[in-house]
Amino acid sequence: MSGHAIFVINPNSSENVTAAIHRSVQPLGRWGPELRCETLDEGPPGIESQAQADAVIPALLARAQSHAEGAAAIVIACFGDPGLHALRDVMRCPVVGIQEAAVGMAMTLGHRFGILAILGRSVPRHHRALGAMGVLSRFAASRPLELSVAELADVATTRSRLREVGTRLRDEDGADVLILGCAGMADQRRALEDALGLPVVEPCQAGVAQAIALATLGLVSRRD
Amino acid sequence: MSGHAIFVINPNSSENVTAAIHRSVQPLGRWGPELRCETLDEGPPGIESQAQADAVIPALLARAQSHAEGAAAIVIACFGDPGLHALRDVMRCPVVGIQEAAVGMAMTLGHRFGILAILGRSVPRHHRALGAMGVLSRFAASRPLELSVAELADVATTRSRLREVGTRLRDEDGADVLILGCAGMADQRRALEDALGLPVVEPCQAGVAQAIALATLGLVSRRD
Amino acid sequence: MSGHAIFVINPNSSENVTAAIHRSVQPLGRWGPELRCETLDEGPPGIESQAQADAVIPALLARAQSHAEGAAAIVIACFGDPGLHALRDVMRCPVVGIQEAAVGMAMTLGHRFGILAILGRSVPRHHRALGAMGVLSRFAASRPLELSVAELADVATTRSRLREVGTRLRDEDGADVLILGCAGMADQRRALEDALGLPVVEPCQAGVAQAIALATLGLVSRRD
Amino acid sequence: MSGHAIFVINPNSSENVTAAIHRSVQPLGRWGPELRCETLDEGPPGIESQAQADAVIPALLARAQSHAEGAAAIVIACFGDPGLHALRDVMRCPVVGIQEAAVGMAMTLGHRFGILAILGRSVPRHHRALGAMGVLSRFAASRPLELSVAELADVATTRSRLREVGTRLRDEDGADVLILGCAGMADQRRALEDALGLPVVEPCQAGVAQAIALATLGLVSRRD
Amino acid sequence: MSGHAIFVINPNSSENVTAAIHRSVQPLGRWGPELRCETLDEGPPGIESQAQADAVIPALLARAQSHAEGAAAIVIACFGDPGLHALRDVMRCPVVGIQEAAVGMAMTLGHRFGILAILGRSVPRHHRALGAMGVLSRFAASRPLELSVAELADVATTRSRLREVGTRLRDEDGADVLILGCAGMADQRRALEDALGLPVVEPCQAGVAQAIALATLGLVSRRD
Amino acid sequence: MSGHAIFVINPNSSENVTAAIHRSVQPLGRWGPELRCETLDEGPPGIESQAQADAVIPALLARAQSHAEGAAAIVIACFGDPGLHALRDVMRCPVVGIQEAAVGMAMTLGHRFGILAILGRSVPRHHRALGAMGVLSRFAASRPLELSVAELADVATTRSRLREVGTRLRDEDGADVLILGCAGMADQRRALEDALGLPVVEPCQAGVAQAIALATLGLVSRRD
Repeated sequence: MSGHAIFVINPNSSENVTAAIHRSVQPLGRWGPELRCETLDEGPPGIESQAQADAVIPALLARAQSHAEGAAAIVIACFGDPGLHALRDVMRCPVVGIQEAAVGMAMTLGHRFGILAILGRSVPRHHRALGAMGVLSRFAASRPLELSVAELADVATTRSRLREVGTRLRDEDGADVLILGCAGMADQRRALEDALGLPVVEPCQAGVAQAIALATLGLVSRRD
Repeated sequence: MSGHAIFVINPNSSENVTAAIHRSVQPLGRWGPELRCETLDEGPPGIESQAQADAVIPALLARAQSHAEGAAAIVIACFGDPGLHALRDVMRCPVVGIQEAAVGMAMTLGHRFGILAILGRSVPRHHRALGAMGVLSRFAASRPLELSVAELADVATTRSRLREVGTRLRDEDGADVLILGCAGMADQRRALEDALGLPVVEPCQAGVAQAIALATLGLVSRRD
Repeated sequence: MSGHAIFVINPNSSENVTAAIHRSVQPLGRWGPELRCETLDEGPPGIESQAQADAVIPALLARAQSHAEGAAAIVIACFGDPGLHALRDVMRCPVVGIQEAAVGMAMTLGHRFGILAILGRSVPRHHRALGAMGVLSRFAASRPLELSVAELADVATTRSRLREVGTRLRDEDGADVLILGCAGMADQRRALEDALGLPVVEPCQAGVAQAIALATLGLVSRRD
Repeated sequence: MSGHAIFVINPNSSENVTAAIHRSVQPLGRWGPELRCETLDEGPPGIESQAQADAVIPALLARAQSHAEGAAAIVIACFGDPGLHALRDVMRCPVVGIQEAAVGMAMTLGHRFGILAILGRSVPRHHRALGAMGVLSRFAASRPLELSVAELADVATTRSRLREVGTRLRDEDGADVLILGCAGMADQRRALEDALGLPVVEPCQAGVAQAIALATLGLVSRRD
Repeated sequence: MSGHAIFVINPNSSENVTAAIHRSVQPLGRWGPELRCETLDEGPPGIESQAQADAVIPALLARAQSHAEGAAAIVIACFGDPGLHALRDVMRCPVVGIQEAAVGMAMTLGHRFGILAILGRSVPRHHRALGAMGVLSRFAASRPLELSVAELADVATTRSRLREVGTRLRDEDGADVLILGCAGMADQRRALEDALGLPVVEPCQAGVAQAIALATLGLVSRRD
Repeated sequence: MSGHAIFVINPNSSENVTAAIHRSVQPLGRWGPELRCETLDEGPPGIESQAQADAVIPALLARAQSHAEGAAAIVIACFGDPGLHALRDVMRCPVVGIQEAAVGMAMTLGHRFGILAILGRSVPRHHRALGAMGVLSRFAASRPLELSVAELADVATTRSRLREVGTRLRDEDGADVLILGCAGMADQRRALEDALGLPVVEPCQAGVAQAIALATLGLVSRRD
């Protein structure tokens, strides 16, 4: 591990999302490297389309490269993993996408994972990402909360929709583990687990855990 | 078909590649809408990494949107389809990726397609893209020419490497149809077909054919 | 392109189906080669089983071979693609199956396609065909109208059933693009798109578009 | 079991192939129903293309229907299973394809099966059939002997080619069980097993075993 | 075939299950080798978890090895196939798992099979087993009866639940063939077929049929 | 996290393997819970077959249950994950298999992973496990060192074989990340990475990292 800190970059510009991410990953903070959660000011308030996800990549690349000296690892804290493979092309430290990490963790907790998507139009993006990852046979379904990133800030509404949609993923789609399909919902994880009787993966936690492991073990993707 | 022309945008800044694309798609020019091949000046001379592919998306989005009024369809003329789903999010006309179109065409010409990649590091990108498309069971292999976009301009070297690599795809990997894994190799198609006895798909041709079909039939992806 | 016309062969003996196919593909008629829609008189009034599909192949092979001199391409205008690979074995021009072409086109318009089948017993045939094509991970579902080929002639009933079944494919199965699972329903395409807000592929249009592209570009499957 | 005999129909017209099939299935003859091996005189001397396979279906359907009263089951004794689903549409007794049965048996004897194909052009047919069956992840490879059905009659040449090609399937492709990809090679099975140290499935044996089981248990596919 | 009898070992200790297995496989008893159905006294009354399934393997291995001299084949008569590959490692005769055999038989009777599971917690085990077999694309669903092995002894309740769950597998999941997901339900097979109009596979019958075939033909998995 | 320590159980009886595991996981020891590496005395000196893997499960279950009070997590330190789902059935803390964890980690480091198997007969077990995990499309190949667990103790031979087999996985099979297919080879990881220019995953490290993450976050599989 060359760098001294793990940088967790929230590619949207909402400070309250960054704060929620910070709270989420605290339990992992006692491990090895320092955790620094940052907001990408150039990003939109929330990333809700492929166009928005792709548009933040240049700024995200620049931000990551500004940390090249000090980073033990970079975590891209947006479900959808914008720029994941681009950053891996240019960084010498491990680069972690929270979607990829969450799926990997879910696959060890149940046989078929369901995703609590924020919007219906996220669903085809999930299908494309899971197809690229080659894990569709472990995928139960992705069902939308139909809440914007802004609306997710309303805790009571979000909790109620999470239970409703999570119940359908469990009972209709056969999911035996769930993934929160958005950064910033970590405060909801434990209550949802209790309500549904299923493990629930918060992707920022999964991403930081993976970053700590790769940084500690000195494991980095090949760069040609 | 609302617009009057099909815009074929080369997202790299090499005018000679745009010229090769122009020559390639001429046979389809007699059909319906006018074909306009353009260079994205903001792009790099050649797109050879995921970082470069992602970095051109904002300029590509802006260029496509500048044609919103007049476009019958947009063709992204770079193997790798940078920005394909982003452009589909925002455009009201059909948006075609030449990689997706080439794979679709190859799947009607043979059972297992092989890709003539430009560089070894393109190969994992092909695997991810084909996984996302859900067509890996029809994929024989992707093998690199190990020529940069610049080196592809040397016709004799390129021809020789194409035959050598195409022969391995046919004889070792079992491909019965090949795809040229880069825009700008169209001049080589017929000679390679004759040398190998296999159909060879030039992706810009496949992309423009698809764009004409979708524009003529008035078929556009759903936008939520 | 050696031949002068694209022959679109309806392998059932119903002239009204051939007439509907003719109307369907007219928008593509301005492109390159002449389009000739023909009825295979030896066929049954409608093809509703694998036994009927297989039984027409010898007559279809003979008809295709009778056009060997003049054909720029052959389109087999029956969902199910009877004789597709047999004709490819013996013809020197491109041979297109409308099912294969429709699936390829749908895969560029949405992520998960649904099929409006005519009868419940068509469904396992669709599964076998899509498995052979290797595209099951992009397939939402096939749901039957439960209308015979003869009953499809009743426009109002067909329209009503298409909307009903299409709604289930969209809302229960998650399809974001639909395919009309029978030649002869082209007149219904636009109204169904408007009703459901999804792109709808008419397979004869997809087949003819592909035939024009392959014929124009001189692309033919390998024959050993 | 309503009928009294299992009819094993060789859809090519070569009596020596029928005789080889007869010898092959004798060990199963002590079980329940009588085994009758028949030649389809209308077939070609050997079936070596999709066009030939499809062309025999009408005669095969007629022959099977002529046995409707007395058949406990029908076995289609040609690798490629011509007419399998068509016959299942119309017959009330079990209909077995030797390719489907051989693959099923091989999947219980090893993890990855290899096919000893007769000709290179059989290979894409195998890929299509295995894709339709949904078993490609268990498939190591299909490699051709490059011997015509007629040449297979030369025992010494066939034996030598079988060993050579089987060795490549085992050592290069990782097959741990092999399938003889043609009816009429049963005499070679035991020697090949001994030479390679792998189980070898003869498809007519697999097909007849399955037919006996289904007939004895009264199991038939659903007909709608 | 070296041994004289096929040993069908019920790895639970319930004699009434063994008796039901014995009744189930009688129709196959007229074929070749003697059938001996045995109870593994060391097993639990019913196997309802992975822990129970794994725990019986040592006793099952010992029992199988005690029959090494006389066995023409061994059938493990528990859905879930405990110890299947372990026994294949050490036995010189064919070893058959009834789950694997039932799936193989179902795949020849319909295109998409459904499983009548005993308990909800069996379902992830079915997914894992079918994934290992590589046949998930042929799998409609597994739905639980939610009856313990003991409760299955109540014929009327079991019959009613089988019809109810089988109807959902047929109508909601699209299954066109069903598998009884537990040994000991053979008495129910015919009535369920009649009620649902679908073929129903009883796994002990499938397993014994396969064992007879392999033993008769002298086919054994490779042992390194 | 209820328990105080993570128990890493080596299910073979070789103390030198346990010692190698202990050295391997030390870098992770600074994180949260204490790591205790234990030898299962009831196990064989090395686990080299499915029969041996299955035979240790009862003792492994008993050992894990003896730690029920104090365990924050259990790691099964044998590639092959014997008893993984059985232990998950009965334990209330996270249970980690090193094979499953290694595959999950490798999938974030490259697109196609290769496995350095100890023996050729391990390969079908790897295929079954990866099929059950649903990740075969990310799998390049498994190639054997052909060294017994005992022979692995010879460092120089093992190093030389690892480089040789790793080179084939990289150059012939296209692997861009490798997994050491046996516990106890951790001392070799860094040298192999340097020799091949690819990341190499040591499964005990991957397993312990996952156990720490799950224990810290309080994530456990559902038990019905």
